[in-house]
Amino acid sequence: MKTCISDVTVLTMDDQSHVYPDGYVLFDESGIIQAGDGECPREADTYVDGCHGILMPGMVNVHCHIPMIPFRSMGDDCPDRLTRFLFPLELEAMTPELVYLSARYGICELLLSGVTSVLDMYYFEDQVARAGEELGIRAWVGETIIGQPTCDSKEPYGGLPLCEELIRKWNGHSRIHPIVAPHATNTNSPRMLREAYEVAKKYNVPYSLHVSEMDAEMDYFREHWQKTPIGFLHDLGVLSPGTIAAHCIHTTPHDWDLLAQSGTKVAHCAGSNTKAGKGISPVQEMKAAGIVVGIGSDGPSSGNTLDLFTQFRMIPSFQKTKYHDRSIFPAREILKMGTIEGANVLGAEDQIGSIEPGKQADLVLLETRSVNMFPVYNPYSAVVYSANAANVDSVWVGGRQVVKEHCLTETEIQKERGNLSAAMTAFQKKAQKYADII
Amino acid sequence: MKTCISDVTVLTMDDQSHVYPDGYVLFDESGIIQAGDGECPREADTYVDGCHGILMPGMVNVHCHIPMIPFRSMGDDCPDRLTRFLFPLELEAMTPELVYLSARYGICELLLSGVTSVLDMYYFEDQVARAGEELGIRAWVGETIIGQPTCDSKEPYGGLPLCEELIRKWNGHSRIHPIVAPHATNTNSPRMLREAYEVAKKYNVPYSLHVSEMDAEMDYFREHWQKTPIGFLHDLGVLSPGTIAAHCIHTTPHDWDLLAQSGTKVAHCAGSNTKAGKGISPVQEMKAAGIVVGIGSDGPSSGNTLDLFTQFRMIPSFQKTKYHDRSIFPAREILKMGTIEGANVLGAEDQIGSIEPGKQADLVLLETRSVNMFPVYNPYSAVVYSANAANVDSVWVGGRQVVKEHCLTETEIQKERGNLSAAMTAFQKKAQKYADII
Repeated sequence: MKTCISDVTVLTMDDQSHVYPDGYVLFDESGIIQAGDGECPREADTYVDGCHGILMPGMVNVHCHIPMIPFRSMGDDCPDRLTRFLFPLELEAMTPELVYLSARYGICELLLSGVTSVLDMYYFEDQVARAGEELGIRAWVGETIIGQPTCDSKEPYGGLPLCEELIRKWNGHSRIHPIVAPHATNTNSPRMLREAYEVAKKYNVPYSLHVSEMDAEMDYFREHWQKTPIGFLHDLGVLSPGTIAAHCIHTTPHDWDLLAQSGTKVAHCAGSNTKAGKGISPVQEMKAAGIVVGIGSDGPSSGNTLDLFTQFRMIPSFQKTKYHDRSIFPAREILKMGTIEGANVLGAEDQIGSIEPGKQADLVLLETRSVNMFPVYNPYSAVVYSANAANVDSVWVGGRQVVKEHCLTETEIQKERGNLSAAMTAFQKKAQKYADII
Repeated sequence: MKTCISDVTVLTMDDQSHVYPDGYVLFDESGIIQAGDGECPREADTYVDGCHGILMPGMVNVHCHIPMIPFRSMGDDCPDRLTRFLFPLELEAMTPELVYLSARYGICELLLSGVTSVLDMYYFEDQVARAGEELGIRAWVGETIIGQPTCDSKEPYGGLPLCEELIRKWNGHSRIHPIVAPHATNTNSPRMLREAYEVAKKYNVPYSLHVSEMDAEMDYFREHWQKTPIGFLHDLGVLSPGTIAAHCIHTTPHDWDLLAQSGTKVAHCAGSNTKAGKGISPVQEMKAAGIVVGIGSDGPSSGNTLDLFTQFRMIPSFQKTKYHDRSIFPAREILKMGTIEGANVLGAEDQIGSIEPGKQADLVLLETRSVNMFPVYNPYSAVVYSANAANVDSVWVGGRQVVKEHCLTETEIQKERGNLSAAMTAFQKKAQKYADII
């Protein structure tokens, strides 16, 4: 079943940043067949009128905690929220069912906003994998490994066996990719970070964790190890092309060298980092050092919305301001971070992240009829500086349409919300305990 | 004709920040009659089911250049754009018709995003006033006064007589408020800044200009006057409770004292300031000094979108990051800046900016059905960190409904766009000259 989308500005995001101002893309479930300017040169089974919209690759969100939907808008401005209510409430109230229904809801939000690939780290991660498989997104799923009891493991580090179980179950799936996900540099013992890394090597899957994000983390490594978290990870031997370090806010030139030399990738979470007042990540320097940097929304508790449009606007604003230079981080570069560079972070750049024959048909059609999308001289600018998630008209993953005219094709968001809402009763009751701080 | 909106969370934004979690608001064209929790205690002629949405005061955008819609997405990342293409292209290509149709389009965008009051500064400002009168927004309109030829005046400072004409024509109108708008501190002679101020005093209208925004401006005052732009304005005697200083990025403690002592108001444009890499305005210090600070989107060429949601998210992110403190600028404070404090900037806090009996019924109903608006524990958080312009369901100005279920009541956006698009042909031809830099 071949589909052709035409009458669109195609942003290929390929190596030469080809743009087809009056373009088409022809594809099927095996991949993109052809893209170019003008009318589609071959017959298709289905034709989609792009109505002068913008067609771009599906966006890649490289750091998320999707099932935290029940926490959204709770204690956003509260300091020390991780220890004051997030960790305890997660421990008490998250169940497999709640994770599953929250993951379904969050994945709907991702798809509706044009995110077709996501890296997720949470608990009961098998439920996230299940939700992802059902709803048609590409998901890199990592069971959290942490040195404390969690909602899915009474024993510290119970995440490691769960992680290996997850890998054995899902490895080889076409869209669901298990990964190894230790929580952070300072919430695991060095031995456990290393053991987890061995598991990632054994199964040849990515290894992702929070790095150089928190003040307490920085203090800990300075005081106890006299090194930076990244120096510590390097000495531990866990930096590699398959390692994805999330945040990397408080990093040094030596850190950048270590990340670059090892081929470690970075997940930049501008919205979450700055809403928490943590700092401006040195993205400019990391990219200059040759590090591949993708974009993460972080979880709905930290980043609030899971789309990348919010992040798109944040990144240039912070980087341009930091360097007092309007010309850096132009819109095209931001969109590359949100597509092909994100794919590169996941080690999937040969499959996704750009519109090129042979790649998977992960596509997003943005409508330009809405009031905020006129005029469009520079389509990259329109996407980065003007668009929001509500401009996403249609989305395909692997050639299969998952969003059509702003609606999900496989479910209804109100149904998902009803199910999740019903499952949140006990959670909300337990959350009352923290009412004074949230 | 009394209208009652019920089944909404009412964010009154009054002095005590009253919230009615299951509230109603009863109003007519003369003002808000009653607001509270539960069912409306009196009869109304029209009932609006708020469907568990959030009802808040109409937002107040205190710095804009609405008619710059034709420039949107043009040269966003280009340094020195003001002199390289914006000033010359404005001079060559802006006509009264283009300003009028652009103003209509931009005002539609403002209303659709819940902005019910806007301060605008541009050329042919009588056309903006006309568009505002027709479309039902509240607009503070200022003809730009500048020491160079402009599209509406061959002679430098031709804006001053046009400004006085504008004032005489519109003063006393219920929604359209003429103001005096010198362009900036360094693009007018001291004598002209003072003359313009005398006009503002004569007619008792606000006086607004760009202040401490540009590097060249700061250099000029340092080199030629050995003072800051604000020190200069103070010595010139033009700081006053009716003075609205836009931007105020590069300011000193002495500047804050001068602004506070004189009662001068500030229009903070976080999105535009930082997208240009200009700097982080010291909003924290200015507010601590007692200065009233409202929020401006700036023009569509600088801020891209005219809604305040984009700004809402930017302001806490920058301020929290600057001070490495998550607790400052909580969501409620941001929403105050976008409503009651904006009203205070305009000197209209007795009329608009909060939901209180006797005030004008400028109201915004946000729907919470969309995927990004669930759950809502803290409604301020939901508005500031999760919402976008597409969540605006309905809008009333002075009790008259201007947006209903995401659509304008008085016109259609596609019609406005068609008219504007047709009028932009000559503009776009002239813009070709700058194709290599934009």
